[in-house]
Amino acid sequence: MASKPIIIVSNDDGITYKGLKTLVECIADLAEVIVVAPNKPQSAMGHSVTIHYPLMVTKSKQFPGIEAYECSGTPADCVKIAQSHLLGERTAAMVVSGINHGSNTALNILYSGTMAAAIEGAIEGLPAVGFSLGDFHADADFSHTTIHVEKIVLQVLNHGLPKGVALNVNFPKRQEQPIQGLRICRQANARWVDAFSERETPSGRPYLWLTGDFVNFDHGEDTDQWAVEHNYTSIVPCSFDLTAHHAISTLNTWNF
Amino acid sequence: MASKPIIIVSNDDGITYKGLKTLVECIADLAEVIVVAPNKPQSAMGHSVTIHYPLMVTKSKQFPGIEAYECSGTPADCVKIAQSHLLGERTAAMVVSGINHGSNTALNILYSGTMAAAIEGAIEGLPAVGFSLGDFHADADFSHTTIHVEKIVLQVLNHGLPKGVALNVNFPKRQEQPIQGLRICRQANARWVDAFSERETPSGRPYLWLTGDFVNFDHGEDTDQWAVEHNYTSIVPCSFDLTAHHAISTLNTWNF
Repeated sequence: MASKPIIIVSNDDGITYKGLKTLVECIADLAEVIVVAPNKPQSAMGHSVTIHYPLMVTKSKQFPGIEAYECSGTPADCVKIAQSHLLGERTAAMVVSGINHGSNTALNILYSGTMAAAIEGAIEGLPAVGFSLGDFHADADFSHTTIHVEKIVLQVLNHGLPKGVALNVNFPKRQEQPIQGLRICRQANARWVDAFSERETPSGRPYLWLTGDFVNFDHGEDTDQWAVEHNYTSIVPCSFDLTAHHAISTLNTWNF
Repeated sequence: MASKPIIIVSNDDGITYKGLKTLVECIADLAEVIVVAPNKPQSAMGHSVTIHYPLMVTKSKQFPGIEAYECSGTPADCVKIAQSHLLGERTAAMVVSGINHGSNTALNILYSGTMAAAIEGAIEGLPAVGFSLGDFHADADFSHTTIHVEKIVLQVLNHGLPKGVALNVNFPKRQEQPIQGLRICRQANARWVDAFSERETPSGRPYLWLTGDFVNFDHGEDTDQWAVEHNYTSIVPCSFDLTAHHAISTLNTWNF
């Protein structure tokens, strides 16, 4: 009998979070799982990596019967360590990340540690998927997501993914009706419009705290934001080639 | 006489670095400059933003005669604070970031705080350029870059940039010959192939430190990596729409 594929699992909320536990449980029968997750919350860390500090990696008993490690670094660090250090001679078949407590639709992908972990996997040549739920609460209900997680992981193990592509999967927050289905989408032009709350420390020193409103500037019905707002699971194929190829010819007309 | 355009300036090395000073000096005559830069090194922070902690912002005397602030956050935080808080009723014409001490060609863009600051500007609708030099030393020689910085900033102020596009500009390390010219490029498929150095703390606890080799997998002569290796300044137009549009039709054939 063929051995099970190895899947690297990480997240950005940290190794103790319910979303990670849900993801591990979804794939534990399909794969040999190796969990490498941050030992503290790493939300909004983007594709940060740790180059100026050492990284501590210790075995975790968070997942009985499963090889698991907690790491002092970022989500991207976790995937690098799994792939370039902990796997040794073994070869992973896939990287999955999440399930994030909170939406990573639209421009949120740029700030997302969850998606950085997935994209790091794709950079290293592995099929990779980041999963997120539109509910940031620690006790968020993930029960409606598991059937889609399993479907997506099986399809990716079966088909692979186009080279240089990772998937950004977002689940709607649990509603009374079941999820309507899965939609392949583009990234919406929707983002946080920032504001800063001005406050004072107990000793009277001013400080700022980031806040704002999430605004959808995009009227398309083919976006991830539209999909989750209409109780669909969105899947956006993402590239780490940031080149705006359409702008190259314009810039070539400039007079440098 | 029309007032000068306002340019927001940031970096990721920190407010005291020579590359930032070089950039400010390049544009001080062209623009009304507002500097908001990290108060400590923020290299490799990617598009990290600070949501779980307060941000401290204080006036800086680093640049006599120029409005400048140092900030406890990341490069992306700095641009958000400039744009959404410090400018008040004023309107910026552009965001520039750098000049980074170290290359941000190829896949380095994903980890780069310098480019995160620029891309943050583009997200907020401003023309934005990140500048980097292929020399990470604190006393790197930036003298050959200034003529190109001025040309690029003037062209961008003159033409604007296509919507949703920021420029990733990389200068070659100073050589005996002057820079050969400017080339509009695509992002190379080149990246750090990771390794981890295994070490022990004085008390015998193991730790890891990220290291590796930068490998160019791309044989194209139209890439940023090729350009800087041949003593050209590279300009890559970059998008923050990560959708891999070409993969949408493939995924639509899958059986979910």
